[in-house]
Amino acid sequence: MNQIKRIMDTDPWLITSDELAITDRRLQESLTAIGNGYMGMRGNFSETYSGDMHQGFYLAGVWYPDKTRVGWWKNGYPEYFGKAVNALNIAKIQLFIDDQEVDLATEKLTDFNLSLDMAKGVLSYRYTARGVKVSAERFFSVDQLELAVFAFMFEAVDGKSHKIKVISSLDADVKNEDANYDEQFWDVLDIAANNTSAHIATQTITNPFGVPQFIVSASQTFAGDLTASDHATAEKSVSNTFETELSADSMATFEKRVIVTTSRDYHDGLDSVIAGNEKIVAEVIKADYMALYQAQVDAWAKRWEIADVVIEGSKAAQQGIRFNLFQLFSTYYGEDERLNIGPKGFTGEKYGGATYWDTEAYAVPLYLSLADESVTKNLLKYRHNQLPQAQHNARQQGLNGALYPMVTFDGIESHNEWEITFEEIHRNGAIPYAIYNYTNYTGDETYLAHEGLDVLVEVARFWADRVHYSARNDKYMIHGVTGPNEYENNINNNWYTNTLAAWVLRYTSDSLTAHPRPDLAVSADELEKWTEIVDKMYYPFDEKEGVFVQHDGFMDKDLRPVSALDATNDLPLNQNWSWDKILRSPFIKQADVLQGIYFFGDQFSLDEKRRNFEFYEPMTVHESSLSPSIHAILAAELGMSDKAVEMYERTARLDLDNYNNDTQDGLHITSMTGSWLAIVQGFAQMKTWQGKLSFAPFLPSSWTSYAFHINYRGRLLKVEVAENVTVTLLSGDALALEVYGEKVDLTSSYSVKLQTKVGGSDV
Amino acid sequence: MNQIKRIMDTDPWLITSDELAITDRRLQESLTAIGNGYMGMRGNFSETYSGDMHQGFYLAGVWYPDKTRVGWWKNGYPEYFGKAVNALNIAKIQLFIDDQEVDLATEKLTDFNLSLDMAKGVLSYRYTARGVKVSAERFFSVDQLELAVFAFMFEAVDGKSHKIKVISSLDADVKNEDANYDEQFWDVLDIAANNTSAHIATQTITNPFGVPQFIVSASQTFAGDLTASDHATAEKSVSNTFETELSADSMATFEKRVIVTTSRDYHDGLDSVIAGNEKIVAEVIKADYMALYQAQVDAWAKRWEIADVVIEGSKAAQQGIRFNLFQLFSTYYGEDERLNIGPKGFTGEKYGGATYWDTEAYAVPLYLSLADESVTKNLLKYRHNQLPQAQHNARQQGLNGALYPMVTFDGIESHNEWEITFEEIHRNGAIPYAIYNYTNYTGDETYLAHEGLDVLVEVARFWADRVHYSARNDKYMIHGVTGPNEYENNINNNWYTNTLAAWVLRYTSDSLTAHPRPDLAVSADELEKWTEIVDKMYYPFDEKEGVFVQHDGFMDKDLRPVSALDATNDLPLNQNWSWDKILRSPFIKQADVLQGIYFFGDQFSLDEKRRNFEFYEPMTVHESSLSPSIHAILAAELGMSDKAVEMYERTARLDLDNYNNDTQDGLHITSMTGSWLAIVQGFAQMKTWQGKLSFAPFLPSSWTSYAFHINYRGRLLKVEVAENVTVTLLSGDALALEVYGEKVDLTSSYSVKLQTKVGGSDV
Repeated sequence: MNQIKRIMDTDPWLITSDELAITDRRLQESLTAIGNGYMGMRGNFSETYSGDMHQGFYLAGVWYPDKTRVGWWKNGYPEYFGKAVNALNIAKIQLFIDDQEVDLATEKLTDFNLSLDMAKGVLSYRYTARGVKVSAERFFSVDQLELAVFAFMFEAVDGKSHKIKVISSLDADVKNEDANYDEQFWDVLDIAANNTSAHIATQTITNPFGVPQFIVSASQTFAGDLTASDHATAEKSVSNTFETELSADSMATFEKRVIVTTSRDYHDGLDSVIAGNEKIVAEVIKADYMALYQAQVDAWAKRWEIADVVIEGSKAAQQGIRFNLFQLFSTYYGEDERLNIGPKGFTGEKYGGATYWDTEAYAVPLYLSLADESVTKNLLKYRHNQLPQAQHNARQQGLNGALYPMVTFDGIESHNEWEITFEEIHRNGAIPYAIYNYTNYTGDETYLAHEGLDVLVEVARFWADRVHYSARNDKYMIHGVTGPNEYENNINNNWYTNTLAAWVLRYTSDSLTAHPRPDLAVSADELEKWTEIVDKMYYPFDEKEGVFVQHDGFMDKDLRPVSALDATNDLPLNQNWSWDKILRSPFIKQADVLQGIYFFGDQFSLDEKRRNFEFYEPMTVHESSLSPSIHAILAAELGMSDKAVEMYERTARLDLDNYNNDTQDGLHITSMTGSWLAIVQGFAQMKTWQGKLSFAPFLPSSWTSYAFHINYRGRLLKVEVAENVTVTLLSGDALALEVYGEKVDLTSSYSVKLQTKVGGSDV
Repeated sequence: MNQIKRIMDTDPWLITSDELAITDRRLQESLTAIGNGYMGMRGNFSETYSGDMHQGFYLAGVWYPDKTRVGWWKNGYPEYFGKAVNALNIAKIQLFIDDQEVDLATEKLTDFNLSLDMAKGVLSYRYTARGVKVSAERFFSVDQLELAVFAFMFEAVDGKSHKIKVISSLDADVKNEDANYDEQFWDVLDIAANNTSAHIATQTITNPFGVPQFIVSASQTFAGDLTASDHATAEKSVSNTFETELSADSMATFEKRVIVTTSRDYHDGLDSVIAGNEKIVAEVIKADYMALYQAQVDAWAKRWEIADVVIEGSKAAQQGIRFNLFQLFSTYYGEDERLNIGPKGFTGEKYGGATYWDTEAYAVPLYLSLADESVTKNLLKYRHNQLPQAQHNARQQGLNGALYPMVTFDGIESHNEWEITFEEIHRNGAIPYAIYNYTNYTGDETYLAHEGLDVLVEVARFWADRVHYSARNDKYMIHGVTGPNEYENNINNNWYTNTLAAWVLRYTSDSLTAHPRPDLAVSADELEKWTEIVDKMYYPFDEKEGVFVQHDGFMDKDLRPVSALDATNDLPLNQNWSWDKILRSPFIKQADVLQGIYFFGDQFSLDEKRRNFEFYEPMTVHESSLSPSIHAILAAELGMSDKAVEMYERTARLDLDNYNNDTQDGLHITSMTGSWLAIVQGFAQMKTWQGKLSFAPFLPSSWTSYAFHINYRGRLLKVEVAENVTVTLLSGDALALEVYGEKVDLTSSYSVKLQTKVGGSDV
């Protein structure tokens, strides 16, 4: 299998290392990124670092539409690629010790440590250079989203005195890694400085698509022991200079507070964005550092109180799940209903867009269990709000109904490759599935009856237009799609897509019966047509292997297992093979047949699940970060505990161990729910089919215990799996559930001996 | 069917109109483009024209690699899109009558005429404005390729005197229609003017791919009756001013001669390109206008002497074939072996690249008949010279052997869409086919034995690596291709591609037997593998319809004829339908099964041909300019004379009648051989299988006669089809051939009565 690379220590709560990873600095920066849902940045040093690195600071919902360029334009192509643009560098300082600047890439450092404290949401680093010990600490405030704090302490440790000078900048002269010809995506609108503060306002460059230009205003104010000595403005940056004479064995603090406001929140142009900034500065400037810090620590503690998963027996597993939850919550915690969960969060600009089907398929199940119902409802409403754009997307293809985008910032498709945008239409199944999931999990039918059906009916209309009738087969078919397995393009009759399409039509019909909606004007003819499509949908099936066939033609491939490949020269395929070879190979990025079986787990026998798992798993390379978690869940259900644990480790430590050799570009945020799903839906076998909660846990042999909480229909439950399986009702009414198939009326706590042989029994 | 738009008069030798097509100016510009193989331009007026138009001047082999931009980069993608860049405007004048400038878009004009004389290669236009009659005439010299001449005559026709002022410019401030953000692709290197001449040198902007930057030097000198009065330089242009007082009823001439040299011919930097320019200026400046003009007329007369096809009874058909031959020869006449036949010639910048498979499949047969063997051999050598680049292209895909590019300037793939570049690999069949075609037509085996086998063996090695073995079917298959029918992408087992691949392997093996080449180190194992692939190649076939199947899955489509579509709202599909709908539809851009049957016409029975033609033709929309000619040829062979004539008209007048509603972007140069193929291989049924020449002509019912010449194995033949079919040996040795199946030993002339019922008999 793939080589792993682990550059940070294995610690339950810290992402830490005593090494400055000069040759893997980009990877280290990705792993130490922090954010607060509003903004965030890679773990760049504030100080100058002249080595290879990737300066990155990002603001949620701030983007640029870069025009699609192809040799031969066709109708229906999306007009642009929506880029998450790298914004200005707010962290920057230049540090001079005795008038000579510190460059962390070349300076001889001792006593180095870099540490991200996930419990607190604080990144710190320290080093000693030329007799001065420097300690830096930063956080993006969860309490005041526009605030970032960069604190430094300087200590003369060699018995001598030293002159310390700090030039603190806001620097908009930033490179974009995703630009092709080093274009810059920002213009500077305003710039100002005085002796104790500075300000810069920037705006994204013009575009021909009517996408708003974003104004970003950033200001810096200061606290601490240094003395302001100068300030300066340049074309694209602004700075303040502070100095002090550090006498032997003394220390001095320096604190930079940055406030960032944008035109997303202040709508009346540059002046309003600046005024908004100044207002927050005026409030924050008075605060004591420790008060700001404590608010941050408290806010994160509250998040962990519900969400933490405690694993005993494997530090690596423990660190993995916490890292994933930490980065997920750093990206999105449901505060702003205009936002969604970007694929790289605030950790890189590769990939465009802020919203993928990952949200519905992978994030919704986690937020349903770990947050208030309203958070999931906000995620659903995000799509409901964008129904007009989804109708526009369908119209672009000459089709009825609504086609939700594969990638978007505002509801309009913003990816630029046809094989993805109008072929990877399976998201038009996952989005309805999330409505079903919410309804089934919470028992709340009101969303379905109103906003839900608005969406479902338009999506059903899309599918009814998108299928075609094959007279020769007397079947409805879906040609020209790309399934979740993106290592195939433009295939016919992807089993997963066909399955979801028919399910949407049936679920919509059934929901309309339960919740009549004459205002949606679904005609009898339409309903009849939907029924006919459902009845005559074609599902590719192979009699010989007894498996659902990924798509027409798959069985004609040169079928062989991943184990036949050379782990060093072939894997990961996407870095070693041409796209041509990948497309034609039998190797699967993520097994979409198994994804479909996971979605509709109550509709397939264990025997069907096993046959398909045993057929597809050996050909799956898991080069989608979304892949291993589903395999972990199914393996657990099938009693293949070693495989389940292997898949858990792969999803939980995908970035920490750089499995796919691409974490240097940023973290895989949206798939980070996978490790939680693997534990809760996999190891603990939590199921909620037909509104009935059940567990059938197993304990990985290398662990001694694990425990987690879930919200379920107004209750807070704690599940502990050790020698005994204990389910405790922490709050809410008594609840009927099943543990290992035994009915339990839970009023306080229920405990049963751990079953060592679980899984593999039919549902 | 599609709507046609005919804006120019139907005349046997002229492309002419008395209307200045204000609303269709771009179309008119395309139709009146001229060139000399070295350079050329759209039929832009020299004078200011403020209306919608497309200024376009192009130099063969001068291009720019524009970096590929995709959302998700994959290995094997071509790095750039090679753009034929629009160069400076060399034709420009500003004309002032009585100090007021003439703007042809707004000026009230009388006596307007625009006329391209195809016999002479001269474009002229005239108009009268404010009492002055202006006559303009221009040509790109076939005799001196670097020379363009723009001549004007001014005549006072209203009994009054007029002041005439002309500002003649070389203007490098040119827009590129194919730029996305109005980028300019030229920098100005040098600029100079004196009172009687001016000069500008430009260079294509930098690129990160190591593609050479092209230097272009242009100079203008003058002749005629006007007096030099001023000159000026600007940032990107240079000009000379001339004036005269035109007394009542008098006339004055003004002549602008432009010399253009490039770094393609002068390799030692800017100075050498300028020095080369100055040397030619010194020679040309002495020449009399009439001498330059006569050289042009003579050169074109010589071309027409061999190539002209004379059609009696249909002015439209006559004009069509001449227009095609004229534009084809204006683009390429074999003088420069580094060049090939660009898809738009000098008529527009849409489409990149200079070389497509069109050359081998469509142009080679024409040049074999209408030019010296050496011209075709140069086209073949062009590919042989680029074998290292073709090996590079294969290596980019991780494959053995050589993969010729789909689109290129220099042998490296220069298109930027994966579904075209590494999927439309059928060109790796057409290029070997041209070697076979040359060998079979000329009887010359020496090219095959040497350069031919160098190419064939490497291409065979590619195919042997590109196929895969399907254990389930015990067959070799080719997945993941795009056939000549580009209205499908990433299909499996395209019958045409599979057929060509197996043919290449067999032809290469056979050729190696005939011409052993130990230096190519083809092992016995390799040959055995090739034989196994040939023996076990999978050819999709439908038992029910008795037809070869375009590709796996085609029969599952919603099959229906083009006649079921709405001609107004649906056609052309590529302008009315989304790419999604086109890909999934049964409608065919060009029928590649029929293309394969055409290539190997001696290997299929008439019954097979008829079944396939009758199955595919009704679903073919002919939105590839390459499509109708092949259908014309097969229809003629099958005795479907009406269909053959319909297809001829469509190919012959594709641009003149703007069938595909895109001629405004430029002409379809490479498909222009199609009308000649339709007449010679279609109507006259010329065949050359196994080195035996035969004819079986029919005469379209609306024509009274047609006649053409062909070169064949050292002979020049004339074929006349009227009440009799007459074949005359104009030069060369006696020749055995067949006419209507009768063996003829041709020594001077042979005549036989026209058969009114031909075609449809088995071969």
